[in-house]
Amino acid sequence: MADRERIYGRRPVAEAERGRRAPHRVWRAPDTPAEELERLAGSPDHQGVVAEVDPYPYADPNGLLEPDDALVVVLDQIQDPHSLGAIARAAEVAGAAGLVIPERRAASVTPAAAKASAGAVEHLAIARVRNVADWLGRAKGRDAWVYGAAANADRSYTEVDWGGRAVLVLGSEGSGLRPRVAGACDELISIPIAGRVDSLNASVAAAVIMFEARRQRVAGPGG
Amino acid sequence: MADRERIYGRRPVAEAERGRRAPHRVWRAPDTPAEELERLAGSPDHQGVVAEVDPYPYADPNGLLEPDDALVVVLDQIQDPHSLGAIARAAEVAGAAGLVIPERRAASVTPAAAKASAGAVEHLAIARVRNVADWLGRAKGRDAWVYGAAANADRSYTEVDWGGRAVLVLGSEGSGLRPRVAGACDELISIPIAGRVDSLNASVAAAVIMFEARRQRVAGPGG
Repeated sequence: MADRERIYGRRPVAEAERGRRAPHRVWRAPDTPAEELERLAGSPDHQGVVAEVDPYPYADPNGLLEPDDALVVVLDQIQDPHSLGAIARAAEVAGAAGLVIPERRAASVTPAAAKASAGAVEHLAIARVRNVADWLGRAKGRDAWVYGAAANADRSYTEVDWGGRAVLVLGSEGSGLRPRVAGACDELISIPIAGRVDSLNASVAAAVIMFEARRQRVAGPGG
Repeated sequence: MADRERIYGRRPVAEAERGRRAPHRVWRAPDTPAEELERLAGSPDHQGVVAEVDPYPYADPNGLLEPDDALVVVLDQIQDPHSLGAIARAAEVAGAAGLVIPERRAASVTPAAAKASAGAVEHLAIARVRNVADWLGRAKGRDAWVYGAAANADRSYTEVDWGGRAVLVLGSEGSGLRPRVAGACDELISIPIAGRVDSLNASVAAAVIMFEARRQRVAGPGG
């Protein structure tokens, strides 16, 4: 029981209910007073509902690349649970096979991340790995092509082939990919910038690339 | 002087400095204590810098469609300044010609929106209009093709032609386009959903569509 956690918010709780961790208990306004909901959630952001659920069921990192057209997104050192949640939401909607995050020095799937994902984490496969570069090496061994997003890369994300098994690696918003992680990629890509502000936020960049991958997959090669 | 406002945050102030409203005065930590910065900003989110600037210089809504390949984004009733800011950031990076927002019942370019845009509002043309549907009618009169994003539309955003003058209309995250606004569009489009969660957040959806428009424009017809 000690390792159960409390998620909060309308959509996170609704998605948990139809996902992999049916709540053991749910508190709702007005039966439960707002102050009590805030105390239970540990956040004022509960939207009138809090649920007690099992710990987040992380996926097996070795299973994510099973489908021969799997698109897996790897987050290298994303620290902000809201970014993790927003990327998970976009990944789930884009039909990605899953997300890989580091075990340490990175955001994990906390209730705040679940909230920011609008509950998408309840359906998406998210795996934790001890070492991101090692996992990328294994992915290459399984014929996945590994693309790393890097602001200074010459190649546009629209110019590469997103068919087959593909991995997209995203670094932290501030400092990008770590050298060893960048070195483990087959190719570095960027989103060309047309304006004067020089970057997109992490979840927007992730979504733009994931939906280009999806577009290519639906349209077929050369589509 | 009374109509000056105070923006805050590192990137918003830096972009104002190289944009259209050079600050009249800047306060920075540690010369100015954190409590004083918070009071000046009216927000704890100041990142150690606050600047006094002129009111936001809204653009002329009739000028946005001048370029014959202008892509203009219209926000129908987006209430959240963070959504407005995030969409403005993506629009500026994607090379959109500008943004149109309603004068009433919608977020305006507040300091919170400027912060959420990472300062992109200082470079992007943002115009306010009294009536969104009327503006769309005028846009059609100037040979712009008007696409409205609607979750239930059959046509995918990837299947339409984003060349020439184009307008993308986005509704509020909760309730979508108002009927009169939807009726003023040439065509309704959607982003196909591959997962179980049924929607993207507004700024992610806007970015995915804007970057598809940009991809088509760079690749040329059929690219």
